[in-house]
Amino acid sequence: MEKINIGILGATGIIGQNYIKLLQDHPWFQITDLAASLQSAGKSFIEAVKHKWQMSIPIPEELKNLIVRDVKDFDSIPENVSFVFSAINMPSKEQVKEVELRYAKNEIPVVSNNSAHRMTSDVPMIIGEINHSHVNVIPIQKKNREFNKGFIVVKPNCTVQSYLTPIYALEKAGYKIEKLIITTLNALSGAGYPGVASLDIIDNIIPYVGDGEEEKTEIEPHKILGKIGDNGIINNDSIKISVTSTRVPIVDGHTACVSVKFRDQIPSKDEIIRIWNEFKSLPQELDLPFAPKQPIIFLENIDRPQPRKDRDNDKGMAISVGRLRKDSIFDYKFIGLSHNTIRGAAGGAILNAELLKSQGFIS
Amino acid sequence: MEKINIGILGATGIIGQNYIKLLQDHPWFQITDLAASLQSAGKSFIEAVKHKWQMSIPIPEELKNLIVRDVKDFDSIPENVSFVFSAINMPSKEQVKEVELRYAKNEIPVVSNNSAHRMTSDVPMIIGEINHSHVNVIPIQKKNREFNKGFIVVKPNCTVQSYLTPIYALEKAGYKIEKLIITTLNALSGAGYPGVASLDIIDNIIPYVGDGEEEKTEIEPHKILGKIGDNGIINNDSIKISVTSTRVPIVDGHTACVSVKFRDQIPSKDEIIRIWNEFKSLPQELDLPFAPKQPIIFLENIDRPQPRKDRDNDKGMAISVGRLRKDSIFDYKFIGLSHNTIRGAAGGAILNAELLKSQGFIS
Amino acid sequence: MEKINIGILGATGIIGQNYIKLLQDHPWFQITDLAASLQSAGKSFIEAVKHKWQMSIPIPEELKNLIVRDVKDFDSIPENVSFVFSAINMPSKEQVKEVELRYAKNEIPVVSNNSAHRMTSDVPMIIGEINHSHVNVIPIQKKNREFNKGFIVVKPNCTVQSYLTPIYALEKAGYKIEKLIITTLNALSGAGYPGVASLDIIDNIIPYVGDGEEEKTEIEPHKILGKIGDNGIINNDSIKISVTSTRVPIVDGHTACVSVKFRDQIPSKDEIIRIWNEFKSLPQELDLPFAPKQPIIFLENIDRPQPRKDRDNDKGMAISVGRLRKDSIFDYKFIGLSHNTIRGAAGGAILNAELLKSQGFIS
Amino acid sequence: MEKINIGILGATGIIGQNYIKLLQDHPWFQITDLAASLQSAGKSFIEAVKHKWQMSIPIPEELKNLIVRDVKDFDSIPENVSFVFSAINMPSKEQVKEVELRYAKNEIPVVSNNSAHRMTSDVPMIIGEINHSHVNVIPIQKKNREFNKGFIVVKPNCTVQSYLTPIYALEKAGYKIEKLIITTLNALSGAGYPGVASLDIIDNIIPYVGDGEEEKTEIEPHKILGKIGDNGIINNDSIKISVTSTRVPIVDGHTACVSVKFRDQIPSKDEIIRIWNEFKSLPQELDLPFAPKQPIIFLENIDRPQPRKDRDNDKGMAISVGRLRKDSIFDYKFIGLSHNTIRGAAGGAILNAELLKSQGFIS
Repeated sequence: MEKINIGILGATGIIGQNYIKLLQDHPWFQITDLAASLQSAGKSFIEAVKHKWQMSIPIPEELKNLIVRDVKDFDSIPENVSFVFSAINMPSKEQVKEVELRYAKNEIPVVSNNSAHRMTSDVPMIIGEINHSHVNVIPIQKKNREFNKGFIVVKPNCTVQSYLTPIYALEKAGYKIEKLIITTLNALSGAGYPGVASLDIIDNIIPYVGDGEEEKTEIEPHKILGKIGDNGIINNDSIKISVTSTRVPIVDGHTACVSVKFRDQIPSKDEIIRIWNEFKSLPQELDLPFAPKQPIIFLENIDRPQPRKDRDNDKGMAISVGRLRKDSIFDYKFIGLSHNTIRGAAGGAILNAELLKSQGFIS
Repeated sequence: MEKINIGILGATGIIGQNYIKLLQDHPWFQITDLAASLQSAGKSFIEAVKHKWQMSIPIPEELKNLIVRDVKDFDSIPENVSFVFSAINMPSKEQVKEVELRYAKNEIPVVSNNSAHRMTSDVPMIIGEINHSHVNVIPIQKKNREFNKGFIVVKPNCTVQSYLTPIYALEKAGYKIEKLIITTLNALSGAGYPGVASLDIIDNIIPYVGDGEEEKTEIEPHKILGKIGDNGIINNDSIKISVTSTRVPIVDGHTACVSVKFRDQIPSKDEIIRIWNEFKSLPQELDLPFAPKQPIIFLENIDRPQPRKDRDNDKGMAISVGRLRKDSIFDYKFIGLSHNTIRGAAGGAILNAELLKSQGFIS
Repeated sequence: MEKINIGILGATGIIGQNYIKLLQDHPWFQITDLAASLQSAGKSFIEAVKHKWQMSIPIPEELKNLIVRDVKDFDSIPENVSFVFSAINMPSKEQVKEVELRYAKNEIPVVSNNSAHRMTSDVPMIIGEINHSHVNVIPIQKKNREFNKGFIVVKPNCTVQSYLTPIYALEKAGYKIEKLIITTLNALSGAGYPGVASLDIIDNIIPYVGDGEEEKTEIEPHKILGKIGDNGIINNDSIKISVTSTRVPIVDGHTACVSVKFRDQIPSKDEIIRIWNEFKSLPQELDLPFAPKQPIIFLENIDRPQPRKDRDNDKGMAISVGRLRKDSIFDYKFIGLSHNTIRGAAGGAILNAELLKSQGFIS
Repeated sequence: MEKINIGILGATGIIGQNYIKLLQDHPWFQITDLAASLQSAGKSFIEAVKHKWQMSIPIPEELKNLIVRDVKDFDSIPENVSFVFSAINMPSKEQVKEVELRYAKNEIPVVSNNSAHRMTSDVPMIIGEINHSHVNVIPIQKKNREFNKGFIVVKPNCTVQSYLTPIYALEKAGYKIEKLIITTLNALSGAGYPGVASLDIIDNIIPYVGDGEEEKTEIEPHKILGKIGDNGIINNDSIKISVTSTRVPIVDGHTACVSVKFRDQIPSKDEIIRIWNEFKSLPQELDLPFAPKQPIIFLENIDRPQPRKDRDNDKGMAISVGRLRKDSIFDYKFIGLSHNTIRGAAGGAILNAELLKSQGFIS
């Protein structure tokens, strides 16, 4: 199969770099276009990321001398680019919204990591294993906005991914959930680069991860679990969620400490573990390249999951869970972990793109 | 005033070392006796802690050449020692219980950090600002056990201290609390020395702090908030507590992320802050040397409290709180922080000893 | 090609675990035998490493239920095992020497990480790219010791690898070196597990890595650079080496800060870089599976090499160098980096085994 | 004694904050003026450092509401300020030079941390225990520049302090030194705030600390060890120094690994230790408030000095040394450690100011 040409918007940032790392040797996609802010535009990629390259692999040879495009020069995108991953980072959400819309209007599908369009009702926010059916909002979006080939698809914030798939698996199995109280321990890479100053985090934790971040983690699930209506997604707020997020001195991997209250029926501990271990969804059925074989991995050892030891499970795309135990106030407690820059960012978006391709939305 | 001679049981361990550090220049107490396990017994203290001294100060000159006593040689304790701080660490609780009881039986009061006697009903478990009145259990204990001058007093585990005083302050002000869901981020020093291996915690967190630790944090408050009955403390379990504890790569300072549900009346945010800032108790009234001037310090900045920056507030004896905000499931959320080896261990016990002295129980 | 069955001596330790990780999917070797101390013997491997498994991958399925052999039960080794990797760790060198000799006497070739036999003159200590010709000591060893098929081959300590290959490349190009003054910053994994206590290394460095470690790094190069004589290797001490080693809070990757004094001719900076970038040796010519394509990678950026970003270069088998600059006292200074548990330990030994197989010493 | 009023130039930066922390309760000096860049000027100090306050103590009450002055508004400095500590940080050295000269011209003595005037020959660069006599350059400076009361005094960079005092002590005892090869492991606070990004240093080291930093460490000792000539200091380059500096993930404390070659006579190990332990100088004789009682502390334990455990020795003002041992290439090796933001920055400058006051240069 011939590979599809794709572009990265925001290629010099840390999420952009992660796309580049993860798409090396991708069986379907190859990067042929890199765009970034004016500061980098016109430079070779190797020059543009000179002191910023954070990945543990060298810059791929074929990208070193690619000239970085100005991300706001909407007409300069090569015709042979099928779609773009957007990892742009701008002072205001409105600017991001505008840029992504302009690409879509120019008939370039945009698979985005950015939060700008997450709550736009005709833009689906997808976790492949949960709401893959939300791709069907795309025709509504196209109609609403008079796009022909272009559209925008987003993924939720990285913190959500460390607990929502295990929760969804229980709901899908018929055990409805009423409330979640969650404390998360977030990795440094979630704050981008340069992000958190080392003097703020060595021998320290920061009990705060940024304006609006906890709110996103509380609200985004309502859309992910929502239904498709006439004009887009209709949110489902049947699960109440309260989140506290802290920053801890680790490189990658967000951990969630979750207390769960069921609505009616309460499954046994064995039943929950069985549901998690057996959970599979469309990405697994389609055997998509970035789909983890087992999306939820339950770890028996009492001191797991741990970020450094478990974040890379199944290419960094599996959610690891552990410490499932009865709770004296709610019903159960457990710990969830996901790799925030892979499953929670670039990897999750790549899986979305694979899903879109398999469903004929990009080609 | 002439200083009182005191001893340290378990002087070579990390809590024992903290006692030594904190008691340097104490106005009332001076260390004249050091006891530890057989392995150290008979050695000079400097020799006994050769590769184990963890404090940021040198070993005090006057202790360097003190010969370490065998902690189990109960008759070897010098007559001029008024009381001992116990920081012993033994394979089983039963052994610790036995050792502490033997000292008490030998008429040496024991102010202990160990968990062994925490739930023994006629042994008071004291946080000076909360249940100082529990010293009145000591006469019951003496009668029960036919001690004359000896007795045992304990303090709760270090995690409890990062949230219980702020909770108690609200209860004392009339706002009864029904439920607490808490996630704690615990420092490495809480696990002793050598404790956690560096390979387990660099670029990592461990979502588990040891067998029974979370349970202690859930149950001990019931005793601290209890009443004195005929035979000891009668627990008060009116507040339900659910705790998840994790280990994070910081040296000192336990952080608690707390969700609070009130029973009836819900105070305003301003009211809570006022209650915390104005909270004072007996140790402050008596102006005890280790009493923090303001036991609860509310920090306005949205990203505080932080362990490295706030754990040393008021000699490491104040509880720092912050991020007070409305909760969508319970009523409020906040973050609490205390220095686990000072407020939560040696410093808390020293405050207890000062309280006991001021009340005439030791002399 | 059918795979060769091999065993791991010391399979439960951190180096043993690294062998298991690195040999997953090895094209020539498959692990069929695991041996460890009495404490683990008789247990399934998953049971034996229960709280000790440190790798970022799960335990391979096919090894989980393999029963661990007692490493000292020399007769229990299955007949179909062609050779063993030794990662044993025992209280004394003499014990290790004895165990490795017993396996060799039982006609099982031993490819070892242990230091015990490093200075035994008829045991070759090999870095594949430097002294691959030392495999020719094996016939002398066999004759000396009346081994038929068995023999012992070792590799040098992990610190040596971060600087010796770049030094050797210069010597091979004709630029003889007189003196090296080296300071190394060693990773935690170099101390094994549990190794360094977290309280000793968070917000800290330790300017010492253990008894005799610096001496090994000073002396082992003399043997590696030696010639084969009638009874074994004749050391070559033409390069004087002085080493200071420190322990720093990183997981993997030893860094060496090197000052170089040439003996006669001093190459230009460009010439040195050219020599490094073009350096290749027998493992590259034979295209051995674990041979890095480019054994020495010179990095242009002024702040490289860095452990986390460069240690994994070419599967963790390449040496990264940088900051080459003129020195005011000696001739040049540079920074070298190698992955201590891959290139410097298990990976280096696997490359040695591949070399031995390609030369017909194992089959 | 009435306290002298002083100002801090660059009060909001990390060195400025350290001055504020260290001058709390200073017996001679009290801060009454705070100046910073335009961005902070006009704000209350508490507002100006809102998210930047890095100290482990709260902002002193009396400074919270002090209005920050524009550091370039040279005429706004209150008349009652006797002298200023300069911790200004500007894009170019030339700007710093200019600002400091303007204050001196306005007859305000400047005790500076900045590197701008370090190599200006009529500006003394002082380490109190080494070249206190260089205060006698001040009259030359005043004459050269037509200052009446004003002048500038600087201190060397923080890395120098971790090894130069022990070296000087040996020279003073008559053992002349020819060469030093040094590798330093520098703390994060040496790079200021925000300084090093956490993603660059967690589980990592950076073998580079900034443009020109190593050169400063090589050259500044020549001036410190120099003689006073007619127009200023005449450098003494009798000791050749080669330095490699690396950045390590610790908060405070620079460590130097030093190889020493003597010129003629080589002292015994015992003699060196005796010289270090007995070394005293003018600050000790004058019993200055910030003078460490013992400027050089030799630690016997083989794994010391360590930053977290030894940096605070004697208020952070003592140099800790250890691991003295014979070297096979030069004569000796040792490890030195000093607290970079106390001894190496604010504390060192405060000691200089105390020296100037005791010698009548400020009042």
